[in-house]
Amino acid sequence: MRVKAYAAPAAGLPLAPTTVERRPVGPNDVLIAIQYVGICHSDIHTVRGEWGPQPFPVVPGHEIIGTVTEVGTDVTRHRIGDRVGVGCLVNSCGRCAPCLGGDEQYCTEGPVFTYAFTDHDGTTTQGGYSTHIVVDADFVLSVPDSLDSAAAAPLLCAGITTYAPLRHWSAGPGKQVAVVGLGGLGHMAVKIAHALGAEVTVLSQSLKKQEDGRRLGADHYHATSDPATFTELARRFDLIVNTVSADLDVNAYLGLLTVDGVLVNVGAGPAPMVVNGFLLSSARRTLTGSMIGGIALTQEMLDFCAEHGIGADIEVISADQVNEAYERVLASDVRYRFVIDTATIG
Amino acid sequence: MRVKAYAAPAAGLPLAPTTVERRPVGPNDVLIAIQYVGICHSDIHTVRGEWGPQPFPVVPGHEIIGTVTEVGTDVTRHRIGDRVGVGCLVNSCGRCAPCLGGDEQYCTEGPVFTYAFTDHDGTTTQGGYSTHIVVDADFVLSVPDSLDSAAAAPLLCAGITTYAPLRHWSAGPGKQVAVVGLGGLGHMAVKIAHALGAEVTVLSQSLKKQEDGRRLGADHYHATSDPATFTELARRFDLIVNTVSADLDVNAYLGLLTVDGVLVNVGAGPAPMVVNGFLLSSARRTLTGSMIGGIALTQEMLDFCAEHGIGADIEVISADQVNEAYERVLASDVRYRFVIDTATIG
Repeated sequence: MRVKAYAAPAAGLPLAPTTVERRPVGPNDVLIAIQYVGICHSDIHTVRGEWGPQPFPVVPGHEIIGTVTEVGTDVTRHRIGDRVGVGCLVNSCGRCAPCLGGDEQYCTEGPVFTYAFTDHDGTTTQGGYSTHIVVDADFVLSVPDSLDSAAAAPLLCAGITTYAPLRHWSAGPGKQVAVVGLGGLGHMAVKIAHALGAEVTVLSQSLKKQEDGRRLGADHYHATSDPATFTELARRFDLIVNTVSADLDVNAYLGLLTVDGVLVNVGAGPAPMVVNGFLLSSARRTLTGSMIGGIALTQEMLDFCAEHGIGADIEVISADQVNEAYERVLASDVRYRFVIDTATIG
Repeated sequence: MRVKAYAAPAAGLPLAPTTVERRPVGPNDVLIAIQYVGICHSDIHTVRGEWGPQPFPVVPGHEIIGTVTEVGTDVTRHRIGDRVGVGCLVNSCGRCAPCLGGDEQYCTEGPVFTYAFTDHDGTTTQGGYSTHIVVDADFVLSVPDSLDSAAAAPLLCAGITTYAPLRHWSAGPGKQVAVVGLGGLGHMAVKIAHALGAEVTVLSQSLKKQEDGRRLGADHYHATSDPATFTELARRFDLIVNTVSADLDVNAYLGLLTVDGVLVNVGAGPAPMVVNGFLLSSARRTLTGSMIGGIALTQEMLDFCAEHGIGADIEVISADQVNEAYERVLASDVRYRFVIDTATIG
C-alpha cells in the first residue's frame, strides 16, 4: 500500500511530497488515517543528519493523531473509527525487564522508533508526515474524547517526555519544580507540573515569555541570564526538568537543588556535561536523564491531560509550510508547537 | 583542660606530639577517653593542605572509639563507663529540614566536622588523634558490646560512608552491586553490601587483591585495566559505589548500569567529571554522590555491623608511626585501615 507523505530525500535537503510504502495490516496491526502530526525538534535533527547517517528518504513525525480505518484479526483494544495516537515508539522486544516493566523505551534489545529505524521485520520505519500509517496495536494509544485532535498530537512526544520524569520523580503538592526552557517541551512541562499540584518555576534565558509562563501555570519566572537567579534560588528545588537541548552550565543548576534534589535532562546537549562531583555528594543530589516514556504511561498521560483539559499550544500549518516551520522552530519562533494538517499532504 | 594529641603544625609538615585544649564539659556534653582512632584518607588531604587552607595546628581523626569518663548534667543517653564512638560530625543546626530528617551531614547551615572546623561557640574543632575529646552527646554513638574496639573505629567514617548509600539506594537481595576500588572504603562497602544480601562485584584496577575480595564477601572480581570488563558487565548493575578518589572515566562505569541504575561517588576525584548525557537519558541512569551519613543512621550501621560480626580489617599502630602510616596509605600499602592506639600518644 503506497500512501502520500512528506520526506527528506537526503541530509539537509528540504522536505518534499512523495509516496511511501506501508506494510499490509497484520493480525496485530492497526491502519490509521492520520489527521494531525506535530513537528518535534528531533525531526529536524534527524533529517539534517545531526544525529548521524539516516536511511533516506526519511518521513519524520512521531506525534500522530488519527482514526482507525482497519484492524488486524487479533486486535481487540482498538476498533474501526476510534481516534488514536502514535508516539515515538512502534515496537520493542516485549520480553526484557524494561519492556515487562512498562519501559519499552529502554528495551534492552533497543526500541524501534517511529521513523528512520529498522523494525523487527527488517523494514525501515517511516513517520507520521503522511496520510496513513500501519502500527502494532500494542503501540497505539487511545485518545480520550475531550481532547482536541490537533492540540493532542504534541502530547505523544512533548507530553510524555515531560510527564514521565515529573511522575517518576514525584512532582506534586508540596514539591518545588523548575522547568528550564519554555519551548515545545517546556510549555508542556509547566502545564503538567502545575496540574500535578507542584509549585512551578520557569527558568528561561530572558523574561520575554514571562506572561505566557504564568498563563501556562508557572508560579514563578526567572531569567537565567541574571546571575542573581542562581543565588536567590540556591537549594530551592526538589526537581529540575531541563528541556533545553543547547549546552548549559549544569553545575549552576545543580546548586539550585535541595538535598536529594534531582536534575533530569530530557533534551541532551551535544557536548558532554562537566560536573562538579562535590555538588552531588554535598547534598546527595541526582543528575539523570529521561527519554520519552512507556506505552502504559503514555496512555496515563493522555487520560491525565483529558481530565485536566491540557493540550499543547499549537499553530496548525499545511504540509507545504513544513520547511518554513523548521526554520521558525530553530529560531524559537513558535508558541509552542507546529502541527501539520495531514489533509494538506500531496 | 589540656590533653595530649598529635597535630600537624602546618600544611605538609609531619605530625608531632603536642597538647590541645578541650572545652569544659557542658550540660549536654560527654568527655571521652579515646582508645583508638582510625586514619582516614581525608586526614591526609587536610593536613597537607590539599583541601584548601586549614586552621593549623590541626589534630586530625574522625574515627574515634573510647569510654565515657564524664557527662554533663542534661545527658541521658550516655553514662560514665559506656563505650562510645564519634565520627565525622560533632554539631549541626538541628533545625533545618535535613537535620530534622536525620541528615545532619547535609545541614543547611553547614555541619560542624570533627576537626579543622569552626564550632558554634567559635572554637576550632580538634580531632581524635588525642587522649580525650569533649563532644555534644547527640553526636556520640553507642558501640555495641560485640564489636572489637580497634576494628570498630573505622566504622565511624569508612563504615557509614559506604553503609549510607548502600541503604539509601536499597542494596539487598536480588540487587547487583559493584564496588569500585578495594581500599579502606571499598573493603567496608564489600562487607556491608554482602551482609545486606546483595550480589557483590569488586571492580579493581588489577586482580592483585582478588583473594581478599572474595574473603570479604565479593561474589565476583574484575580488573578495570581489562577493557573486556566493560563489555562483559554492560548494563549489569543496579548500584555502583565508587570509593576511588582518583579521577576515573565515569562514562565507562555508567555503561555498566542497568535501567534506573545508580552510580554513587563517595570519594570524589579532584577534577570535574565529564559526563555523556545520553548514557543517563537512554536508561534513566542516576549519577550522584553521598557524604558520610546522619547520626541515627550511623547508630543503625553500628548495630548492623555488630549483628553481622563486621569490623574493619585493620593494622594497629602506635602514634609515633603516624607519618609513616600516611606514606603507606598513599601507596595503598595497608589492608585496609590503620588504627592508632591512643595509649601511645605523648
